Amino acid sequence: MIDRGVVVLAGGVGAARLLRGVIRAVDPARVTAVVNTGDDTVLHGLHISPDLDTVTYTLAEAINTETGWGLAGETWQAMDALKRYDGITWFGLGDRDLATHMYRTQRLNEGATLTEVTAEIVAAWELPLTLLPVTNDQVATKVTVTDPPEANGGSTGGDCGPLEIGFQEYFVQRQHSVPVHSVRFDGAESASVSPEVRAALATSDITVIAPSNPIVSIGPLLAVDGVRDHLTANRDKVVAVSPIIGGKALKGPADRMMTELGHEATAVGVARMYADIASVLVIDTADADSAEEVRSLGLTPVVTNTIMADVDIATELAQTVLTAV
Amino acid sequence: MIDRGVVVLAGGVGAARLLRGVIRAVDPARVTAVVNTGDDTVLHGLHISPDLDTVTYTLAEAINTETGWGLAGETWQAMDALKRYDGITWFGLGDRDLATHMYRTQRLNEGATLTEVTAEIVAAWELPLTLLPVTNDQVATKVTVTDPPEANGGSTGGDCGPLEIGFQEYFVQRQHSVPVHSVRFDGAESASVSPEVRAALATSDITVIAPSNPIVSIGPLLAVDGVRDHLTANRDKVVAVSPIIGGKALKGPADRMMTELGHEATAVGVARMYADIASVLVIDTADADSAEEVRSLGLTPVVTNTIMADVDIATELAQTVLTAV
Repeated sequence: MIDRGVVVLAGGVGAARLLRGVIRAVDPARVTAVVNTGDDTVLHGLHISPDLDTVTYTLAEAINTETGWGLAGETWQAMDALKRYDGITWFGLGDRDLATHMYRTQRLNEGATLTEVTAEIVAAWELPLTLLPVTNDQVATKVTVTDPPEANGGSTGGDCGPLEIGFQEYFVQRQHSVPVHSVRFDGAESASVSPEVRAALATSDITVIAPSNPIVSIGPLLAVDGVRDHLTANRDKVVAVSPIIGGKALKGPADRMMTELGHEATAVGVARMYADIASVLVIDTADADSAEEVRSLGLTPVVTNTIMADVDIATELAQTVLTAV
Repeated sequence: MIDRGVVVLAGGVGAARLLRGVIRAVDPARVTAVVNTGDDTVLHGLHISPDLDTVTYTLAEAINTETGWGLAGETWQAMDALKRYDGITWFGLGDRDLATHMYRTQRLNEGATLTEVTAEIVAAWELPLTLLPVTNDQVATKVTVTDPPEANGGSTGGDCGPLEIGFQEYFVQRQHSVPVHSVRFDGAESASVSPEVRAALATSDITVIAPSNPIVSIGPLLAVDGVRDHLTANRDKVVAVSPIIGGKALKGPADRMMTELGHEATAVGVARMYADIASVLVIDTADADSAEEVRSLGLTPVVTNTIMADVDIATELAQTVLTAV
């Protein structure tokens, strides 16, 4: 067992899979996941934190492994009944999953911080690590897209020009199938990390940038006051894991989005994005021939299998990552 | 078919049963139910309107007839999952019922009025009448009770003195089993009826006070600006149906609450409460010997079977009520 204090900067699915390995590679009591909240949204009055929930459900071994989100063995009575009202059903909320959002919303309405509620939810699932939203302030990822009318049921009429929408309206409602012009993190300029995140970063021996979408999963974390500066100042203790393997994202639109926003959708492109904040980049064996170019960008390349097909591979990857600096 | 424009002042179960008969006795297009919203509450961030939903589900023949609230054939996955978080489960929300509250909350958050959302919900259930919340403003029934610690899980510690709580905390959480000292309608002084309610009252040929709890179901309706004055001025067109039969309420705490607040829990007690605003009181055959005392209070007594065991009896009662003035 590796004896180090670890902070993992986390998005959803990829980060959750790595964390499954991390809590097996080191004492989970010394692991803190700092999770993206730019994807958070309010639907039906309920505060939904998709990345926090994906990490929680995955580590609780309760995730629906087919979809990568939501709970295994869900029922869909509420969503089905919502159809009667022509309500919002493009964002699927299973009946048992709903309880998480209901509980979170109730506690936030009672004055609890998102950090406090998250700790309560983590305790309820008996997870052994610490999960922290990056901030208690509101940071909302906004995506400007080309919006063909058929993608939104014609709601914007004949206007096919650029349209700024919320992240879930892009990611789920339009199934990330529309071109992205730009991304911004609304509220980030006035948001600050929570005291708990500040303390975790300050005391960690190593910070891991999980294999999550660099733009919309890691981007919001870096945009919150204090995070990027901390990483830059402690670059020698930061290891990133490339979410791009052989020019493709395993899941989600990271590859296409990187290309659309002027990045190269390769391990080298990831290296360029992280060169200022990380000293090591873990890349997949499929990208072994990019190692030297990664090194030329000032990052030490580590080549290994990064496709976490099961928890053993995730644990091996975590061991590699956590001993890389 | 009786050809009259009808307004029914409605609480929950008793009003819903009478309305089942009313829409069979007259053209439903000429029926407007003005429904109590003093019971409304926000739980888990969801706006819940119990009386509106009880009326809607009852008229849609979708109500759980055993409980008198919620939908028949419900599942309880969300409530069950909420237990993991030690969330609020004393107010039962079935999975399909949740969709109603989710839709309502979403629409209110989008800026719709409760009147607009209610019309949408009524349309979705294809109900043939008009359902109106008495007001779009917030009116919250507050109940001051003696609160023994065991009634609330000890949350108020050893304090058994008077405590003011929300209506659902009294009605559902404490199962209306604690003594009531007083009732008030928070917000009523600054609330006004919606334009739709004002128009319905102004154009109706007859106004019916449903057999609902006079204090906490009809009380909030009368407390909203304009309603009591309208009834007083149009007393000759107002018929009330006593919710007290043989000194008892068929359902709920109306009888005990009337006694605790200094009223007589009898048909005569109801007559005293409504003498200024109604000209006819329909009382049950069980209370036939109270007819003369009712008359002496200035109300014309009508004695008939008021126990709406089925829709035929409800329709007969509605016919009696609607031809009483």
